[in-house]
Amino acid sequence: MDPKLGRMTLKEWVAIESDSVQPVPRFRQELFRMMAVAADTLQRLGARVTSVDMGSQQLPDGQSLPIPPVILAELGNDPTKGTVCFYGHLDVQPADQGDGWLTDPYVLTEVDGKLYGRGATDNKGPVLAWINAVSAFRALEQDLPVNIKFIIEGMEEAGSVALEELVEKEKNRFFSGVDYIVISDNLWISQRKPAITYGTRGNSYFTVEVKCRDQDFHSGTFGGILHEPMADLVALLGSLVDSSGHILVPGIYDEVALLTEEEINTYKAIHLDLEEYRNSSRVEKFLFDTKEEILMHLWRYPSLSIHGIEGAFDEPGAKTVIPGQVIGKFSIRLVPHMNVSVVEKQVTRHLEDVFSKRNSSNKMVVSMTLGLHPWIANINDTQYLAAKRAIRTVFGTEPDMIRDGSTIPIAKMFQEIVHKSLVLIPLGAVDDGEHSQNEKINRWNYIEGTKLFAAFFLEMAQLH
Amino acid sequence: MDPKLGRMTLKEWVAIESDSVQPVPRFRQELFRMMAVAADTLQRLGARVTSVDMGSQQLPDGQSLPIPPVILAELGNDPTKGTVCFYGHLDVQPADQGDGWLTDPYVLTEVDGKLYGRGATDNKGPVLAWINAVSAFRALEQDLPVNIKFIIEGMEEAGSVALEELVEKEKNRFFSGVDYIVISDNLWISQRKPAITYGTRGNSYFTVEVKCRDQDFHSGTFGGILHEPMADLVALLGSLVDSSGHILVPGIYDEVALLTEEEINTYKAIHLDLEEYRNSSRVEKFLFDTKEEILMHLWRYPSLSIHGIEGAFDEPGAKTVIPGQVIGKFSIRLVPHMNVSVVEKQVTRHLEDVFSKRNSSNKMVVSMTLGLHPWIANINDTQYLAAKRAIRTVFGTEPDMIRDGSTIPIAKMFQEIVHKSLVLIPLGAVDDGEHSQNEKINRWNYIEGTKLFAAFFLEMAQLH
Repeated sequence: MDPKLGRMTLKEWVAIESDSVQPVPRFRQELFRMMAVAADTLQRLGARVTSVDMGSQQLPDGQSLPIPPVILAELGNDPTKGTVCFYGHLDVQPADQGDGWLTDPYVLTEVDGKLYGRGATDNKGPVLAWINAVSAFRALEQDLPVNIKFIIEGMEEAGSVALEELVEKEKNRFFSGVDYIVISDNLWISQRKPAITYGTRGNSYFTVEVKCRDQDFHSGTFGGILHEPMADLVALLGSLVDSSGHILVPGIYDEVALLTEEEINTYKAIHLDLEEYRNSSRVEKFLFDTKEEILMHLWRYPSLSIHGIEGAFDEPGAKTVIPGQVIGKFSIRLVPHMNVSVVEKQVTRHLEDVFSKRNSSNKMVVSMTLGLHPWIANINDTQYLAAKRAIRTVFGTEPDMIRDGSTIPIAKMFQEIVHKSLVLIPLGAVDDGEHSQNEKINRWNYIEGTKLFAAFFLEMAQLH
Repeated sequence: MDPKLGRMTLKEWVAIESDSVQPVPRFRQELFRMMAVAADTLQRLGARVTSVDMGSQQLPDGQSLPIPPVILAELGNDPTKGTVCFYGHLDVQPADQGDGWLTDPYVLTEVDGKLYGRGATDNKGPVLAWINAVSAFRALEQDLPVNIKFIIEGMEEAGSVALEELVEKEKNRFFSGVDYIVISDNLWISQRKPAITYGTRGNSYFTVEVKCRDQDFHSGTFGGILHEPMADLVALLGSLVDSSGHILVPGIYDEVALLTEEEINTYKAIHLDLEEYRNSSRVEKFLFDTKEEILMHLWRYPSLSIHGIEGAFDEPGAKTVIPGQVIGKFSIRLVPHMNVSVVEKQVTRHLEDVFSKRNSSNKMVVSMTLGLHPWIANINDTQYLAAKRAIRTVFGTEPDMIRDGSTIPIAKMFQEIVHKSLVLIPLGAVDDGEHSQNEKINRWNYIEGTKLFAAFFLEMAQLH
């Protein structure tokens, strides 16, 4: 056995340019290499490894590219122990030194305790932390406290191409013995305080099209006698949300979960320096002034954002056009216990009401083009309590109990297909910069994170 | 003398690809050839011709292209006669047979009495009709009833590059003896009934920028706690005009000219088949049901059109972005006696009022990026009465007295600099399709138009 592979380091993984976003053969080759290296690492750890052929992908331009394999791996098969499945991904966002990286993105570089490199925190570092935790038991010649499974993909940043079909197919095979699922693919809300993530918002994305005809008009020749589609659309979009951020669609708040004292206490317990948050966001003023209100409006209340308009004049300069057909786009972030199809009906009815009052001769069509359910876990679930205890052991503190205002489709997908307790245990600090230039993971987070996963295994063993 | 040049035909002029819109050396060469041919034609007609070197033009890409010369020509210098100056242009819009032309755009082709070809109606045909009218007096060996001047350019479709400076410079030279200016560069409102155009709307183009920061946000990470610039902008744009087309900016109608009985009668006298107009416009329903209301709202009332938004998401698909900085664009078509700078103040004040009520922390900036005054002539001016009589002589009918809902910058420019009576006498029918595929002039319009100009010379002679 090559001893080097037993000590696979983050530096070696970051050096592989496993970019899944740019669909070019060179990066695909790197992705296949990345998955092969990971499979080899897991094999040498003693795992039973299957690299599932995912076929190929047809791109919009007609090109066909192979999809890197998904790794399914199993370590231990003791029926008296619980089985924890870890999900991670080894593909990364694009990175180009010319875009503002201070160091080569594919050369892990330590500066002041920070390990800079593409994929360092998203998600190669956390995957290796989990592997390192397993290795530690091996090195100490101790039995693993729990059975471990791995599902590692290479297409997460490109939308987890074909993953859902695989999970569906493996539901009663690979996933049949799984008791718990752990994902470590997001960040803390703080620089130093660990967190557990127990919920994400969903999203319903709408288009509202207003059409007079499929050709534009000249505003000199027709201005003054038309029901202009832009005037209709601006009125429709203007009817959705008020200046305080309150959504004006009737009934939209009806199913929003009631706020309990216990929940309020979770927000109070979170340390958030509002001034620093505001400065780092480069926002002059938020809609709310207190930490609790800010967190609740990001996590537990719905929000409506208007994204833009397709079909109108969108370039620099002055064009005297009356657009003939325009499509407004907005979305509502959904929270428990809002229902996607109820929201679809409420929004459609509301826009139809507003439009009918205008007596416009244009045609309006409302469509919901995307509907993702919110996800929430019970923070008193045994896995959550085990994770909390592990954090207390390693960090000597209570974790921030946090949610994510965005949707994490993987989490929702596992929950809906596999129906097991699922927890998100992030390792990285709030300023790790996933997806942006100078992505990093702190050496401290990487090492304490490895300890946390080991402690978590021991805590999980207590549940059985 | 080459007898052929004395009989220069529309076919030969259309064959010159004098496209001023596409800034490439080949078309510029054609433009220079076009101007040389026209100068030669005028010289052989006996005119004193100056081809004014217009220098060159710096394009945004750094390329420099020569500007075709402007022709200034004079025929006759009798102090006892009036002097009429004719403006025309010999450049054309781009034309490519692959875009839907049924015949080669640069080969004048007659089908059912229609002469198809790029520039046939805009503006080579009318320029030649004027020249032909002059030639007729020459051929009959008659003295010209009036002194004639020509100003012919080759950059009209590209925005009359450098023309204003030339007119300003020649104000007290070439234009000093001019009594009347005639332009024939628009169309009738009918297929068969001639028209005289006595007014155009102006235009004030506005941008309203709302900025939170110069970077976009993710709607999952920030949705719910921001004063979103798009929500502000949609509210601002939605405050401008109601669903009946009425502009909501306070005071905007204060200076609009009062409607007189005489003016109403001019609309009543115009034949407009509303059903046909609606069908050819492919509009299901206009804001108004009567001919008079339609014409008044196109010509004598202001209109407000929202053109689009820069900086928001404008592509197909679903992007969950909160734009950080957006620029809304709209314009108001101005009518007598609205004043550009008053309108600028009214709009700015209105938007500031609406914005301040939102208590948004974003920054708003309103700018008027273009301000063109409306133009209107006195239809009882002697030149107008002469043109009417000439139309009666040739066509045996009263002309439609029409305006143009768009701005014709050339007309306004001449009026503001030269301060002489200016009339627009179109020759082409409403369906001539200037700027579009299959542009044509009817043989009948071309020949009767030539007669009309000759009759107009005789009528104009009566004024002195």
